[in-house]
Amino acid sequence: MMNIKDIIKTNKLEKLVLEGTFGIEKEGIRVDDNQKLALTDHPELLGDRSYHPYIQTDFSEAQLELVTPPEQSLKETFKWLNALNDVVQRSVESDEYIWPFSMPACLPETEQIPIIRVRDQKEVEYREKLAEKYGKKKQLISGIHYNFSFSEQFVKSIFEHQREHDSIKEVKNELHLKLTRNFLRYQWILTYLYGAAPFAHHSFFEQAKEEIPLTKPVRSVRNSSMGYHNSTDVIVRYDEVAHYVNDIEQLVAEGTLSEEREFYGAARLRGNAKKIDQLNHTGIEYVEFRLFDLNPYSKLGITNEQARFIHLFSILMIWIEDSKAKEAIKEGTEKNEQTASEDPFAKSAYYQEGMELLQEMQAIASELKVESEYFEVIDQAIAALEDPSQTLAARLTQQIDSVDQYLKVGRKLGTQYKQEAKGKPYLLNGFEGMEMSSQLLLFDALQKGITVEVLDENDQFLKLQYKSHEEYVKNANMTAKDTYISHWIMENKTVTKKILKSKGFNVPDGEEFQSLEEATAAYYKFKNRSVVVKPKSTNYGLGISIFKNSPQEEDFKEALEIAFKEDTAILVEKFATGTEYRFFILDGKVKAVLHRVPANVKGDGRQTVRELIEQKNMDPLRGTNHRAPLEKIKFGNVEALTLKEQGYTFDSVPESGEIVYLRENSNISTGGDSIDYTDKMHSSYKELASRMAVPLGVKVTGIDLIIPDYTKPSTPEDPGYTVIEANFNPAMHMHAFVTEGKGRRLTRDILEMLFPELY
Amino acid sequence: MMNIKDIIKTNKLEKLVLEGTFGIEKEGIRVDDNQKLALTDHPELLGDRSYHPYIQTDFSEAQLELVTPPEQSLKETFKWLNALNDVVQRSVESDEYIWPFSMPACLPETEQIPIIRVRDQKEVEYREKLAEKYGKKKQLISGIHYNFSFSEQFVKSIFEHQREHDSIKEVKNELHLKLTRNFLRYQWILTYLYGAAPFAHHSFFEQAKEEIPLTKPVRSVRNSSMGYHNSTDVIVRYDEVAHYVNDIEQLVAEGTLSEEREFYGAARLRGNAKKIDQLNHTGIEYVEFRLFDLNPYSKLGITNEQARFIHLFSILMIWIEDSKAKEAIKEGTEKNEQTASEDPFAKSAYYQEGMELLQEMQAIASELKVESEYFEVIDQAIAALEDPSQTLAARLTQQIDSVDQYLKVGRKLGTQYKQEAKGKPYLLNGFEGMEMSSQLLLFDALQKGITVEVLDENDQFLKLQYKSHEEYVKNANMTAKDTYISHWIMENKTVTKKILKSKGFNVPDGEEFQSLEEATAAYYKFKNRSVVVKPKSTNYGLGISIFKNSPQEEDFKEALEIAFKEDTAILVEKFATGTEYRFFILDGKVKAVLHRVPANVKGDGRQTVRELIEQKNMDPLRGTNHRAPLEKIKFGNVEALTLKEQGYTFDSVPESGEIVYLRENSNISTGGDSIDYTDKMHSSYKELASRMAVPLGVKVTGIDLIIPDYTKPSTPEDPGYTVIEANFNPAMHMHAFVTEGKGRRLTRDILEMLFPELY
Repeated sequence: MMNIKDIIKTNKLEKLVLEGTFGIEKEGIRVDDNQKLALTDHPELLGDRSYHPYIQTDFSEAQLELVTPPEQSLKETFKWLNALNDVVQRSVESDEYIWPFSMPACLPETEQIPIIRVRDQKEVEYREKLAEKYGKKKQLISGIHYNFSFSEQFVKSIFEHQREHDSIKEVKNELHLKLTRNFLRYQWILTYLYGAAPFAHHSFFEQAKEEIPLTKPVRSVRNSSMGYHNSTDVIVRYDEVAHYVNDIEQLVAEGTLSEEREFYGAARLRGNAKKIDQLNHTGIEYVEFRLFDLNPYSKLGITNEQARFIHLFSILMIWIEDSKAKEAIKEGTEKNEQTASEDPFAKSAYYQEGMELLQEMQAIASELKVESEYFEVIDQAIAALEDPSQTLAARLTQQIDSVDQYLKVGRKLGTQYKQEAKGKPYLLNGFEGMEMSSQLLLFDALQKGITVEVLDENDQFLKLQYKSHEEYVKNANMTAKDTYISHWIMENKTVTKKILKSKGFNVPDGEEFQSLEEATAAYYKFKNRSVVVKPKSTNYGLGISIFKNSPQEEDFKEALEIAFKEDTAILVEKFATGTEYRFFILDGKVKAVLHRVPANVKGDGRQTVRELIEQKNMDPLRGTNHRAPLEKIKFGNVEALTLKEQGYTFDSVPESGEIVYLRENSNISTGGDSIDYTDKMHSSYKELASRMAVPLGVKVTGIDLIIPDYTKPSTPEDPGYTVIEANFNPAMHMHAFVTEGKGRRLTRDILEMLFPELY
Repeated sequence: MMNIKDIIKTNKLEKLVLEGTFGIEKEGIRVDDNQKLALTDHPELLGDRSYHPYIQTDFSEAQLELVTPPEQSLKETFKWLNALNDVVQRSVESDEYIWPFSMPACLPETEQIPIIRVRDQKEVEYREKLAEKYGKKKQLISGIHYNFSFSEQFVKSIFEHQREHDSIKEVKNELHLKLTRNFLRYQWILTYLYGAAPFAHHSFFEQAKEEIPLTKPVRSVRNSSMGYHNSTDVIVRYDEVAHYVNDIEQLVAEGTLSEEREFYGAARLRGNAKKIDQLNHTGIEYVEFRLFDLNPYSKLGITNEQARFIHLFSILMIWIEDSKAKEAIKEGTEKNEQTASEDPFAKSAYYQEGMELLQEMQAIASELKVESEYFEVIDQAIAALEDPSQTLAARLTQQIDSVDQYLKVGRKLGTQYKQEAKGKPYLLNGFEGMEMSSQLLLFDALQKGITVEVLDENDQFLKLQYKSHEEYVKNANMTAKDTYISHWIMENKTVTKKILKSKGFNVPDGEEFQSLEEATAAYYKFKNRSVVVKPKSTNYGLGISIFKNSPQEEDFKEALEIAFKEDTAILVEKFATGTEYRFFILDGKVKAVLHRVPANVKGDGRQTVRELIEQKNMDPLRGTNHRAPLEKIKFGNVEALTLKEQGYTFDSVPESGEIVYLRENSNISTGGDSIDYTDKMHSSYKELASRMAVPLGVKVTGIDLIIPDYTKPSTPEDPGYTVIEANFNPAMHMHAFVTEGKGRRLTRDILEMLFPELY
C-alpha cells in the first residue's frame, strides 16, 4: 500500500494535498407560524424541481434541500451556500420559516405528512415505499452532507510518485477509499464535536408519547439508533470499489434495499453517473459524508470553522494508517452510535483516541503550513474534547430545558435567519462584492433554477444555462441579444443624435467640435440661444456648462475650455428645459420610468434638518459607497452650502410639509431620491421612447428624455420632449428599489428575455 | 426687394453667409491606349448604375460621371471627389484611362459611338433621340457641375430680418434666384478664368475634317457656339420660380424639349424631386451651375482654389445689385459665348466689368473676414484678368501646338492621374486620416455603389445603405452582425479560455491571479513546467515573461511583479511552442491565415545590410507610422543589436540567399513581413478555428493558434495546436497587402456579409 504521507513529504506536495473539490447539501423543513410542519406546496418562486440545480425537495414537500455546485475551495462553497440561503429565505411564504434543527418541530399525524408533490409518479411511489418501511417522521430529519474529493493535480502527482498502481483512476480510488474507511472509523469525533440534536419533539415519536429525549438528552438523536438508518443487516465493504458496488447491488437484488439510493451509509462513494456500477468504470469522483447535524447556531446549518475542521480531518484520514478489515468500519460505526447516545456533558468514551488524532492533526497542520484559521479550529476541538460543555450538543442542552423552550429557541433562530436575509433585499450574500444589478440577476436566476457559473466575478461575467441553452451576461444586462454596433452607437453621442434625428426624433440641435479654435469661431451660431457645452464622451457630469440665456462670448469660450479639459471633442447643444426621466427599454417595451430628485428632507415642524436627515438615512435602502440602491445624505460642505442658499443650517427646523434640498444635482449617488413614473408617465412618451430603440438597434437601453409636462401628450406639432441620451448597460437596481412608487424588477425581465422558455 | 448686403451687415451674418451645401459632378470619358474612345462596357467593378449613388454614366457608355453627396463645406466635397476619383481610376481596365480634357479624344464614326447600355429601355430611347437631335459627338463633351445652396440657418436669419416675404421658402427662392440671375449675367468671367477647352480633336467635328480649332484656339470650345447647347429658342425666365417652371413645361409641351431634363441652361434650379413642378411647392433646394470645363491640370477636373473662387463669386452675386429683366440674362449668356470664343491670349472684352467685380469681391472678402486662401484666389484672378497668359486656356495653348501634342498631353496627364491613384492602393484620398481597414471598406463600398455616410471620421463610424437596408460599421468590422456579449467575452482572456476549454478546444492550462501574494503562493503549481506570465488584459506584448523551462522561484516572482505592473490581474499559462498564425474568421469560415516574420533582409552576396534594407524599404507597401500596410525597417539600436548578435553590422555583406534578421519580434509595426498561409494551412486547423467562433458567438474574429507543423493534420489524440487568443475587431489591412502570397480583400467579405443581396 502506498505511503501517502511519505510521498507528500518527499515530493513537497504539501500545497497540493490541501486542494480539493467541495460541495455542501443542506436540508431543512419549512414550518408555519406555530412551529408546525408546513403543509403548503414548495414555494412557486423557487421554480421547477424537475430541473432546479440548487434547490430541491427530498422526501417531504416541506423539506428543502440546498445544493452547492462543486467548487475548488471552501470559500467558494460558502459563497454559494450563503447565496442559496438568501434565495430560499426570501422565497418562503411570509407565515413560514425554516426550522433550524435537524430534528423536526411539531409534526402532525403521520398520514397528514405530505410526500413530495411532483409530476414524476415513480418518485412519489419510491417515497411512499420508504414511508411504509421507515415511517414518514424519520424522513423529516434534516442534516448536512459534505462532498469532497482531492484535486486532480494532487492525485496525478501521487500517481507519478508511486509504483503500485498503473492508472490515475486506481490511485484516485485508493486515496478516496482510504479517506472513507478512516472517516468511518473515526467519525465519532465529528459527532462528539458537532452533534447538535440532543433531543426531539415528542410528536416525532410514532408510539411513545412521553418526552423521552428531553428528560435524557444525548449528543445526536439523529446519529443514534433513533435516527434514520438502514436496517442493521445493510453492510457494505469499502476495501475495493468493486466490492462496494457489488454489495449494494446485492442488497437491492435481494430486496433489502428497494433502490441503490436507499443505501444510507454515513459515507457514500460517488461516480459521475446515477447508476452505481458506473463506479467500476469511471472510478470514484468524490465521496459524500452524511453524518452532520444542522448547527442551529449558524443560518447555514454549518460554520466555516466546522468545514475547515472536516477538510483537515479528511487529510488526516489519508495521512494516518489504515485498515481494510470490515470490522474496523463496523467498530467505527458503533463508536459513532455510542458517542451519539452519550450525555452531552459526559467525557467521550474514546477521549484518548480522539486526543491522539487531534494532536496528529496539529502536526499535519504544521507540516502543511496551513493558514492560522486551521490551527484555531483544532485548538477549539481539543478544548471541546477536554471540556464537553463546549460541544454544540451541550450548549443546546444548557439553553433548552422544556418543550416550550425547544420550540421557542427554534422559532427565534429560524425567524432571525429569515429576517437577516430579508433585511437587505438588494444584496446577495456571498456575492456582495459584485455590482448590485448583478446580485439581483444572480438572485433571480438562482431562484428560478437557472444554472449559473460566475466566469469572472470582478468583471461581472456570468454564464447562465437551462438545459442546453447557454447565455452569457456581463454587468447584468449586456448579452447576446444586443448587437456589437449598438453599443458603439450609444457610446458616441454625436452618432446617437445623428441617427435619432434622421428618424425624426427630437434631439437638441448642436454641433461637434474637435478644436477650441474651431469651436470659438462658431460662437456666432450660438450667441442668441440657450446652450449646453459638454465633452463628447465623458459621462459623469464633468465639464458641462449650461447657458440658459444667450451666452457672452467670453463665458462661451471659458465653457469650451472647461469641456475640452475632459475630452478631445466637445458638443455644443441647444439646452432643453423640463424634467429628466429615464426610460428603461427592454425588447421594444418601456419596462420602467424613473425620475431622480436631488437629496432632500420634508419638514415636520418639529425636527431639525439634521434630525430629518438622520431619520431618512435610517432607511435600509440607503447605504454608502454604492453598496445600497440609495445613498445616505451626507453632512458635507456642499450640503451646508445648499442649505445656506435656502437660508437654512443643519439646525434649522423646517415647517411641516416643507421640502428642503441638500443638493442641486439629482444623482442618487449624492443622496437623491428615486421616484417611479412607469404608470404615471403619459403613454405617448413611452411609445416614443420604445420606438427610439429601433434605429439604435438595441434591446436593452436607458433613454433619457427631458419632458416639461409628463401628463400632456406628445403630438407631431408639439413633441413635448427632447431626447438627450441613450445609454448602454443602463442601471437596473435603481428601478428595483425606489423612494416613491413601485419598484420594477428588471433583472427578472432580462432573464425572461434570455430564457423565454422558462417564463 | 430685400437688401441682402445690408441685412448681413446689420445683423452680423458674415459667418452665416459663408455656410452652404456643396456638391460637384465631374464627367470624363474613358479612352483606350491609343486615345480612342473606349468601346468597352462600363467597368463591372463599379457596381450597378441602376442604384449607384456616386458613379454613373451619362449619355455614352464610356462617359463616367462622379457625383459627390451634398456636404456642408467645400473641404468635405473635395474629400469625396478625391475618394471617388481613386475608386474610378482603380476600377477602369488596365488598358484604359480617363481623358483629362472636356473635349473628347479620338472619336470613331458616329454610328460606332455607344449609347449607354442599361436595362431601362426608356433611358436608351431618350438618348437615341438626343443623338439624333444634337449629334452623338457633342454629347461626349465633359465638364464640371457645381451645386450650391446657402445654409438653412443663413436663410432663416435673412427671413427673420426682412419684411417683404411671409415664409422662409420665399426668402430661400428669392436668394437663390438672385444668385442665379447674377451668375448668368457675369458667368463670362468664370469662362475667362477657367475656360480650358481651347480646341478639339478633328474627329469631334461631324463635317469639316480640317483642324479648325487648332489653327485658331479659343478660351472654351465647350462654352462657345460649338458646344453642346439647346437651340437658341430655348429661353427660360429666372425672375420667379413659377415662370421658370412654366417656361420649361411649355418647351416640353410644344416639343422643343423632349423631356424637362433636356434643358441645358448654364444654371438650373433644383428641387427635391425629379419633376420640375415640385419647385412650385417645395421651393428651390439648390442651384446647379454647369459651365465649367474640366481643368486638365487637376486630377479632379477642378481645383480647390477654383471652387473657393466660385463660392465667393456666389456670395458676390447676392451682394451686388440685380436685374430681373430677361435681357440681362440674355446679355450675360452672349458675353459668355463671346468670351468663350476669344483668343486665349486676348484681353477680355469686358475687362472693366470684370475688374470691378473682382475688386468688389475683395471688399466682401475683407468684410466677411474669410481665410487667407480666399484672398489668394482673388489675387490670382485679378492677375489673370490683367494678363490673359495666366488663364488655363492660354497655358494649354502654349503647351499644345499640334494634334499629336494634344493627344500626347492628354495621355500624359490621364495616365499620370491613374498611376497616382494606383500607387498606394491601401489609401483612399480624402479619407487617409481614417484607419487603413476603414479606408479599404469605404473604397469597396463606394466602388460597389453602397451609400456611405461618415457619421464620425475620428471614431471610424460609417453608415452604409442600400435601398432601405441600413447598416452601421465601426472600425471596418464592428457591426450589428456581432453580439454585444461576444465582444466582452473576447476582451476577457480568462472568460474566452474557460468557454473554449468547456467546448473541448486545446487552450493553455493556466490560472488567473488577483494579487501578487496569491500568485507567489501558487509557485508550486508551475515550478516544473514551461510557463508564460502575462497581464490579463493588455494587448501589446507588455509585461510578458516566458519560461521555456521550469522557472526558479525568484525569477517567477519577478515575472509576476512585471506583469502586475501592467494590470490588476495576471495569468500564468503553460507555454505553447510552435509558430503563431492568425486565422481571420468571418461568418463561420476562415477567410485568411497569416504568419508574421520578424524584420529581415535576404542577402545577394553583393549589397550591404544597409543597402538591402534601403532596397526593401522602397516597396510602396512599406510606410511609416502605420500609414501603410507594412512598415519600413528602421536603422535603430534594436536593429543594430540584433545584427550584432548574428555577428553583423549594417555594413556587412550577407551571402546570397542568406536571411539576416533585424528584429526578434515579429510585429509588422517594427518592419516584420506578412506571409499569407490561407491556402497552405492544413484544412483541419481551419476547420477547428472556424468552429471556435461558435461558442464565442462571434461572426468576425481573429483567432491566434500556435501550430508546430501546419502541414500535419490535427487529430483528437494529437491536436497539434494551442489556441491562445480570440480577438475582436481583428486587423484586416494586413491580410490585404502581404509580403508573400496572395492578399485577401476581407473588407469586401464584410460588405458581402452586411449586404448579401448585392453580391
